[in-house]
Amino acid sequence: MEYKKSPTAAVIVIGNEILSGQTQDLNINYIAEKLFEKGISLLEARIIIDDIEVIVRAVNECRKKYTYVFTTGGIGPTHDDVTTMAIAKVFDLPVQRDTKAEKLLLEKYPRSLPYTEERLRMADLPQGAHLIQNPISGAPGYFIENVYVLAGVPNIMQSMFDNLLFHLNRGAQIFRKTIFIPLFESQISRQLRNIQNTFPDVEIGSYPTWHPDEKSGTHVVVKGHDERKLSEVIDKILNIPKEIS
Amino acid sequence: MEYKKSPTAAVIVIGNEILSGQTQDLNINYIAEKLFEKGISLLEARIIIDDIEVIVRAVNECRKKYTYVFTTGGIGPTHDDVTTMAIAKVFDLPVQRDTKAEKLLLEKYPRSLPYTEERLRMADLPQGAHLIQNPISGAPGYFIENVYVLAGVPNIMQSMFDNLLFHLNRGAQIFRKTIFIPLFESQISRQLRNIQNTFPDVEIGSYPTWHPDEKSGTHVVVKGHDERKLSEVIDKILNIPKEIS
Repeated sequence: MEYKKSPTAAVIVIGNEILSGQTQDLNINYIAEKLFEKGISLLEARIIIDDIEVIVRAVNECRKKYTYVFTTGGIGPTHDDVTTMAIAKVFDLPVQRDTKAEKLLLEKYPRSLPYTEERLRMADLPQGAHLIQNPISGAPGYFIENVYVLAGVPNIMQSMFDNLLFHLNRGAQIFRKTIFIPLFESQISRQLRNIQNTFPDVEIGSYPTWHPDEKSGTHVVVKGHDERKLSEVIDKILNIPKEIS
Repeated sequence: MEYKKSPTAAVIVIGNEILSGQTQDLNINYIAEKLFEKGISLLEARIIIDDIEVIVRAVNECRKKYTYVFTTGGIGPTHDDVTTMAIAKVFDLPVQRDTKAEKLLLEKYPRSLPYTEERLRMADLPQGAHLIQNPISGAPGYFIENVYVLAGVPNIMQSMFDNLLFHLNRGAQIFRKTIFIPLFESQISRQLRNIQNTFPDVEIGSYPTWHPDEKSGTHVVVKGHDERKLSEVIDKILNIPKEIS
């Protein structure tokens, strides 16, 4: 598959609230879409608990395997925010007050509230971390080498991610199209398999719909770098219903 | 943390469509909620690509670490459905036509359609797999040892999961309550930390709200097995705004 030539990525969501079902994760999907547009292949996403050792292990595994690693969650000022301690441990760096981050925090805080030490905890970062702007609440994200450390709150995470996108290397453009075929997967699977074998560089995904409110059938998703090949594949898929009737 | 006495679980979502941002995963949240109600601790969720070697590695890592492993996706009849081959490899079992699964499939298929070999591919399972009923489209899920193999389509996955829930061992009941405090996280973080230190058996999570449409503040989530301790913690948290004003 040609995808392997593209930069790769993993997302690590740090959050007990997701794993206990209290919150639906929305960050993976946001990052996935943006990476897709940029031609970067997201190959793995993990949701893990707020535990320093668990975070260290996951980040270490992923940063060696993928071009980019994005973490979300656990960078606030409360006792359950342990991501920065874990990232410092990953890179064996001291955590220290970052003066640029401190400035960003102070700019954003309401004048009516005193600047307490607790507030400034969010400016304590692994030494040498590169800041990622947070236009919403001020407290920045940061990156060290290929590990990007982002907030967990979706709108803050999104604004941080949009700010860092220009840092990332673009992969070859991927074209994608979804075709709906009003037949069961098992009625078209032989034909799809044959098309896939003929065009190994095009990724063909098949997703059945079995929902009382929707028409039963199959969404076929084709993806690839070569638009011409893609449109050949699309023609062949659109032709399946005629072939088998 | 008392949670460690409970059964544990991991979810492995097999799906290129999630990783390329084309689909939002809904299965993790569904499973997470149901496991929470049953007192089972979901400690990890992974989203991985439709690749046999990748699936084998993820399942092998998780089945040794956790009481239960649930996979979703990749058990249909098309070329991109490779989960069963991977699960067979994990347990070193042959894949063979399962007569019970075949019967379930035939019962559910529309009379108007011929029973083709392609259709019956969904009855080819690792030898000795225990079936999990699928009241929607017929094609069953299955389990082998502690690995539960489920469909990816959310409504089908949900009906399978509901069917297997009674197989799972219940953990000690976990109580949970969410309290909204109309103050910034950094205003209450010292107090929360003190309460957490006093009650190590209660898990206190803190989630800021920074959304233009919502009142800014902090959702504090408390979880634990001991209802009495939990209500002590809740009282202390509700008292924070008075303390600091």
